[in-house]
Amino acid sequence: MEPAFRGSGSLVRAAILAVGSELLGSSRIDTNSLWLTARLETLGGEVVRKACVGDDAGAIAEELRHAARQAALVLVTGGLGPTADDRTREALAEFSGGRLALDTALLSSLRDRFARRGIPMPPINEKQALVLEGSEPLVNPRGSAPGIWFERDGVVVACLPGVPSEMKGMFDELVSPRLEARHGSAPRRRRILKIAAMGESAVEERVGPVYEKWKGHGFTILASIGEVQLHLLATGTEAEATAILDAQTADFERALPGRIFGRDDETLEAVVGEMLRTGGATVATAESCTGGLIAQRLTDVPGSSDYFRGGLVAYANDVKAAWLGVRETTLGAKGAVSEETALEMAEGARTRFRCDYAVSSTGVAGPGGGTPEKPVGTVWIAVAGKGARARLLRPPGDRAMIRGWTCAAALEMLRETLKDN
Amino acid sequence: MEPAFRGSGSLVRAAILAVGSELLGSSRIDTNSLWLTARLETLGGEVVRKACVGDDAGAIAEELRHAARQAALVLVTGGLGPTADDRTREALAEFSGGRLALDTALLSSLRDRFARRGIPMPPINEKQALVLEGSEPLVNPRGSAPGIWFERDGVVVACLPGVPSEMKGMFDELVSPRLEARHGSAPRRRRILKIAAMGESAVEERVGPVYEKWKGHGFTILASIGEVQLHLLATGTEAEATAILDAQTADFERALPGRIFGRDDETLEAVVGEMLRTGGATVATAESCTGGLIAQRLTDVPGSSDYFRGGLVAYANDVKAAWLGVRETTLGAKGAVSEETALEMAEGARTRFRCDYAVSSTGVAGPGGGTPEKPVGTVWIAVAGKGARARLLRPPGDRAMIRGWTCAAALEMLRETLKDN
Repeated sequence: MEPAFRGSGSLVRAAILAVGSELLGSSRIDTNSLWLTARLETLGGEVVRKACVGDDAGAIAEELRHAARQAALVLVTGGLGPTADDRTREALAEFSGGRLALDTALLSSLRDRFARRGIPMPPINEKQALVLEGSEPLVNPRGSAPGIWFERDGVVVACLPGVPSEMKGMFDELVSPRLEARHGSAPRRRRILKIAAMGESAVEERVGPVYEKWKGHGFTILASIGEVQLHLLATGTEAEATAILDAQTADFERALPGRIFGRDDETLEAVVGEMLRTGGATVATAESCTGGLIAQRLTDVPGSSDYFRGGLVAYANDVKAAWLGVRETTLGAKGAVSEETALEMAEGARTRFRCDYAVSSTGVAGPGGGTPEKPVGTVWIAVAGKGARARLLRPPGDRAMIRGWTCAAALEMLRETLKDN
Repeated sequence: MEPAFRGSGSLVRAAILAVGSELLGSSRIDTNSLWLTARLETLGGEVVRKACVGDDAGAIAEELRHAARQAALVLVTGGLGPTADDRTREALAEFSGGRLALDTALLSSLRDRFARRGIPMPPINEKQALVLEGSEPLVNPRGSAPGIWFERDGVVVACLPGVPSEMKGMFDELVSPRLEARHGSAPRRRRILKIAAMGESAVEERVGPVYEKWKGHGFTILASIGEVQLHLLATGTEAEATAILDAQTADFERALPGRIFGRDDETLEAVVGEMLRTGGATVATAESCTGGLIAQRLTDVPGSSDYFRGGLVAYANDVKAAWLGVRETTLGAKGAVSEETALEMAEGARTRFRCDYAVSSTGVAGPGGGTPEKPVGTVWIAVAGKGARARLLRPPGDRAMIRGWTCAAALEMLRETLKDN
C-alpha cells in the first residue's frame, strides 16, 4: 500500500456491489467494477472487497449492511431501472430504515426526457422518481435511471445505473466531485501510455530496463486486441507526482521510439483524426477483411465528418475491381490477399473518394478460407498518401482478434504516415 | 425462488468467494466463478451471491461468516498456495474456531510430489500440509495446493486453488461427487430469447402478463444497446424442463409477435445471414451515421462473404451522390437526414452493388450537428428489396448508443423484410 490520501493519512476503504441476477449466471460478468476501481485509485480510494448479488431487495439490503461494516464508501451499480426486478431503491430503503417518496421534480424531468423523444412515459417508469428520505437523487443525463447519494454514520452509499456508459458519465460528473469535496483531492496520479499493433511480450521485452530503473514503482501492463497500455502510478503532491510520471514517460518513450501514440483517454482513432484535422487533410478507407471496422473506428470520433469522406467495404472481388479500380490481372495473378491488391485498393480509394490519404485491408480472417500459401491470419494493409506502401501482418487468434488487430495496425500505419509528412 | 432440487425440494443456495488482492485491482477479474456457476447449475445449485476479497485472513474470515449466513454451500477459490499472502487456511481456522495441525500423510505426499520432479520441497510449502481440525483435505493431483472440505451447522465450505486448471479438475473429481452424495442432482435448463431494437420498458410492458402467468418462475430481463434478452430457467428432468421452457417461449412469442429473433448464442447478424444464405440472396450496405458498423456486424459472421457483397460508408454528401446516385435535388430539398435520402441510398446500393437487398442509415449521431428540426438522435433507416421502405428512429443516449441502436434497428428491419418475402 502506498501512503496516500490527504486529510486522514490513509486510503478510503471502498466496497463495490454489482446488482443483477444476470451477474450470477454462467455467462455475464461484472466489469463495471474494474473501471470504478481505476477511478477510485486516482481519488485515493482502495477497493477492499467487491460482490455481486441478485435482484432481491432483502439480499441486496443484507449485502449493503455487510459492505457498510467493511468500508467507508459503498459503490452500487445496477437495479435502478423501471422494471419489477430493479430493486436497489427498495433495498437501500430497507438498509437505511427510511421511506421512499415521489419526487415531483424528478418525475417531471423523467416525463420531459420521454417527451423529447416524442413518446409518452410508460407508467412503470414512475417508480424511478421514488426518492429515499435523506438521500440525494443523482440526475442521469444519458438514461432514465437516476442514481442515489446517501450518507449515514460516516458511510457513503452511492448507487449508479448498471449500463456502463451511464454509470461512467455519472461517476465522473456527480460522484467524483462529491468524493473530492468530502475527502480532499487525489494524492495519486495515474498516467496511461498507449501502444498500438505491438504484442504484450514485445512491449514487455523492450521496457524491461525501465521497470528495473524504477523498481519499487508499480507498473501495470494491460493488453487488449491490437493495443497495449502501460499504467503508471505516482504518489505525492501534484507537482511531485507529475515530475515522476514525466521522467518515467521519457524513459518509456526512449524504449519504444515513436510507438507511444497517446495517453490516458486518448484513442488511436482520435489521435489520427486530430492529425488529419490539423493538417487540413482528408481520408477514406477500402476494407476487405476488416469489413467496415476501420471506418467505424474513425467515425466513432465526434466531428470526424471534417476529415473522413467515406469508405468502401469491398468484400466481393468484382466490387474491388468495379468500385476501386483494382485490376483484374492483379486479382488473377496475385490474388485478393496480396501486397499488390492492398496497394491498388488504397490508391483507388484515395483517388476515387478524392482524399489526401486512404487506408486498406485485405486478408484471411478465418475460420475458413485459408490455404497453405495464405493461411488464416495472412493480412495485407496499405496506406496511400503522397506515395503508397503496404505491410504484411500475421495477427494471432480467432476471426475477431484478426479483424481487431488488423484495424489497429492500419490506423497505426496511417498515424506513422501522417507523422512523417 | 423456483421449486426444484430432487431430494430436498429446493435448490441449494450457493455462494462463491474468490480470494486474492490481484482481483481487487483494475485489470484482473475473477472468471473461475463463471465456470463454477455452470457446474453448480447442472448439480441443482443456485448461486445467490459472489464476492472477491484480498489476501487478509481477518477479511476472508469476515466474508466466510457473511457467506455462510446467505448460503448452504460456500465455494472458495484461491489463497491456498505456499506464500505469506496465501491466507485462506488461516481464515477458515478463524471462521471455524478450530486449530491447524500438521498432517503427516499430506506432508509426505507433498514431499513425494517434489521428489518426482527431482527437486527438494522448499520449506515454505510445509505450510500446505496444515489441516484444519474436523476438515478433510482434498488432494490436488495437478499442483501443490490441497483443497479443503469443511462442514458445520449444515453449511459446507469447499476451498479450491485459484489456478483454473487445478480448480476445475478438483471440483469435478472431488467436490462434485461429494455434493451429489449429499444432495442428489437436479439439472436446470436455461434459455435466452432475444429481441432487437425495442426498449427494455417496452418489452417489459408487453410481457407483463406472461410473467404473471408463470409467477414463481424466475425471469431475468437484460438490456444492451439495441437488444433485450429474456432469460428463462427451468428445473426438473431434461424433458420436464424443456417442456416448461417451450410453453414459456410460446407465451413470450405471442406477447411479442415476430419480435423474438433468436435464442441463446444466436446473434442478429448470424440470423439475418442465415436467412440470406437460405434464400440464396445477397446484401449490401450504405451507411452514413453508423459509419461502417452495419457492415462490420454483418461481416463478423464467418462465411458472410457468401451473401455480403460490399458496403459504402457515405459520410460526405458528394459521396452519397457520386457513389450511390442520391440526387442532388433530394439532398438539397430534403437534406441528408431524410426519408428520401435513406431510400435513395438503399436503392442506390442495391442497384450498384448488384444485390437483392440493401440497407441504409442516415442520421445525426451527435454530439454536434443537431438542429431544432433534426435534433441529435434523428435517424432514418431504409431497406431496399423488391420494394423499399424507410423508418424514422429516435434512439436515446450518446453517440455510441445512437450508432449502436441504429445498427440493431437496421438489421432488424432487414430481418423483417427477409421474413416477409
